[in-house]
Amino acid sequence: FKNPKIAVIAGDGIGKEVMPEGLRALEAANKKFNIGMQFDHFDFASCDYYLKHGKMMPDDWFDTLMKYDAIFFGAVGMPDILPDHVSLWGSLIQFRRGFDQYVNLRPVRLLPGVPCPLANRKPGDIDFFVVRENTEGEYSSVGGKMFPDTDREFVIQESIFTRQGVDRILKYAYDLAQSRPKKHLTSATKSNGIAITMPYWDQRVENMAKQFADVRTDKYHIDILAAHFVMNPDRFDVVVASNLFGDILSDLGPACTGTIAVAPSGSINPEGKFPSLFEPVHGSAPDIYGKMIANPIGQIWSGSMMLDHLGYPEAGLAIFTAIEKVLSSANSPLTPDLGGKAKTDDLGKAIAAAI
Amino acid sequence: FKNPKIAVIAGDGIGKEVMPEGLRALEAANKKFNIGMQFDHFDFASCDYYLKHGKMMPDDWFDTLMKYDAIFFGAVGMPDILPDHVSLWGSLIQFRRGFDQYVNLRPVRLLPGVPCPLANRKPGDIDFFVVRENTEGEYSSVGGKMFPDTDREFVIQESIFTRQGVDRILKYAYDLAQSRPKKHLTSATKSNGIAITMPYWDQRVENMAKQFADVRTDKYHIDILAAHFVMNPDRFDVVVASNLFGDILSDLGPACTGTIAVAPSGSINPEGKFPSLFEPVHGSAPDIYGKMIANPIGQIWSGSMMLDHLGYPEAGLAIFTAIEKVLSSANSPLTPDLGGKAKTDDLGKAIAAAI
Ligand SMILES: CC(C)[C@H](C(=O)O)[C@@H](O)C(=O)O
Ligand SMILES: CC(C)[C@H](C(=O)O)[C@@H](O)C(=O)O
Repeated sequence: FKNPKIAVIAGDGIGKEVMPEGLRALEAANKKFNIGMQFDHFDFASCDYYLKHGKMMPDDWFDTLMKYDAIFFGAVGMPDILPDHVSLWGSLIQFRRGFDQYVNLRPVRLLPGVPCPLANRKPGDIDFFVVRENTEGEYSSVGGKMFPDTDREFVIQESIFTRQGVDRILKYAYDLAQSRPKKHLTSATKSNGIAITMPYWDQRVENMAKQFADVRTDKYHIDILAAHFVMNPDRFDVVVASNLFGDILSDLGPACTGTIAVAPSGSINPEGKFPSLFEPVHGSAPDIYGKMIANPIGQIWSGSMMLDHLGYPEAGLAIFTAIEKVLSSANSPLTPDLGGKAKTDDLGKAIAAAI
Repeated sequence: FKNPKIAVIAGDGIGKEVMPEGLRALEAANKKFNIGMQFDHFDFASCDYYLKHGKMMPDDWFDTLMKYDAIFFGAVGMPDILPDHVSLWGSLIQFRRGFDQYVNLRPVRLLPGVPCPLANRKPGDIDFFVVRENTEGEYSSVGGKMFPDTDREFVIQESIFTRQGVDRILKYAYDLAQSRPKKHLTSATKSNGIAITMPYWDQRVENMAKQFADVRTDKYHIDILAAHFVMNPDRFDVVVASNLFGDILSDLGPACTGTIAVAPSGSINPEGKFPSLFEPVHGSAPDIYGKMIANPIGQIWSGSMMLDHLGYPEAGLAIFTAIEKVLSSANSPLTPDLGGKAKTDDLGKAIAAAI
């Protein structure tokens, strides 16, 4: 991507506070590595927009955003104003489906200077990726209610796993595992309980494994896998999971490393036919919005992932290294979640300065 | 229940090793409290049985077990011999559905002497229950495959939430929360992503909450809830969840307290129309079977829960107190997972002696 064009959407809540810091870091890298990145800002995909227009996005959102090489996203959702399933299905989930961002990629890494809730773990011990299917599976829009408002009332929702959908996420995860020193892939399943879709998932894993003979494959049921994230997080390298299981594991992983406020994510269309989206794992956090105490590292690290994706790995690494450097030096201005007293922009400026 | 009749099913793998210790503790309580409990042993609901008979259970399993007041269960599954979805759906899941054991109850408690993977937590800090719906939801038998063996192949599985099914588990959980000092109920949801069934779950919770005005209710999406189990496990009192979410949380909770080998569970029909089933949370663990190193506490604690359920709470407490006592005294014979060198039966005998 030459002179990449970036659509910037800050969204709701602390999204609006951390976004300027994400951009500050990107601008620093932009200059240093002469990338020629350009940014345009949009106010839709936010609850503010909904309040004004009665919908989360303008009708031409797809064409508007298709002109960009990537979307740099903050956070969305204000549950006191609008139920989450309205705000999210009207924005993020639309992007994932519309732009076929079928990979959700989330690093789980223990960083220096981040308080870790697990006993006896140190930076380097935990370093893996969760690769989540991002368009189908348990997040379906098919289903409904029968016998409403009676005793016999029930609701149904389909989980849908297609061969194409499953195979392409497995392929991506295996490629990633093959590129890493440990060459180890773990599949999240639940074929002992979810006895129709999950045995199918297992079959497709077995089938794909044959094409990656040099990658060691294992599988765990999601219940015990979640347990191992706590008990043996050093065991993992690349974990591949369905939409729902990946959602759970990619919050649980960062929680185990203390980095839930710090972790980034990419919703990626690997073929580059559509723009990919990069955003922090954390949400809009209405409870702390307005205090400027939100940790901007999730947003900044997402910028680093975006640069990797756009073909500027040295620039991406420079941002990540700056984060590590600021986290591990004494006297850095840290936000309260990291045990400091600094404001969102203090920490953001320190990282930008370190780039 | 006077002179309760117990059906004993050891099942597979380490189920066969821990069951004698569970019975040893129950016999001790039986004598001490003059309960008059009687035990009959059955060899079905095991993979051995399957190998002999080509099915997991005899056709008259329902009538056979209906004669009992409770089922004391070990573990089932030998994935090298039989896929889990065959062995489990042919046994445990049959019991849960057939005997309408719609409550799955699992305590999450930090015990003395059990190594805890979380930093800075001590016994007493973590003490809550996971109440899991046990008959419907994501564990459905409805669905199938379309376009098999082609590129267009896909599988579908329904999640099914009935008003009756949801309301009765919520009622049970609220009753439990109301009986506890903190009177706090947390609902596990995912209404921002699973946008048909989970908003319905939320509605039923809101509705039930009105009848329990003295219980404080909150809800978390399953991804961040799993994260809070690691970050803030002291925050919970009673957590109510669907079948799948409850499955995940009730392995994750014990993992956070280091008690996965120790935790018990009850699959309960609260009305007592059908026998309830008590079993350790751990599975058959084929990898350690045959070495007699399995920790029998999960089985023994399950016996304690069974006595509570049968109406002998002093006897249940006596067993639980004996477990705590043995775990916290120096020189107790502990199994390797607890840092000791004792065998399964050494630990079992010590606990029985302490009753
Ligand atoms: C073995 C499996 C089917 C079962 C479940 O998922 O219900 C188990 O994990 C449990 O929690 O009892
Ligand atoms: C907000 C929600 C719909 C979303 C999801 O479940 O996918 C979020 O949790 C995430 O992980 O990006």
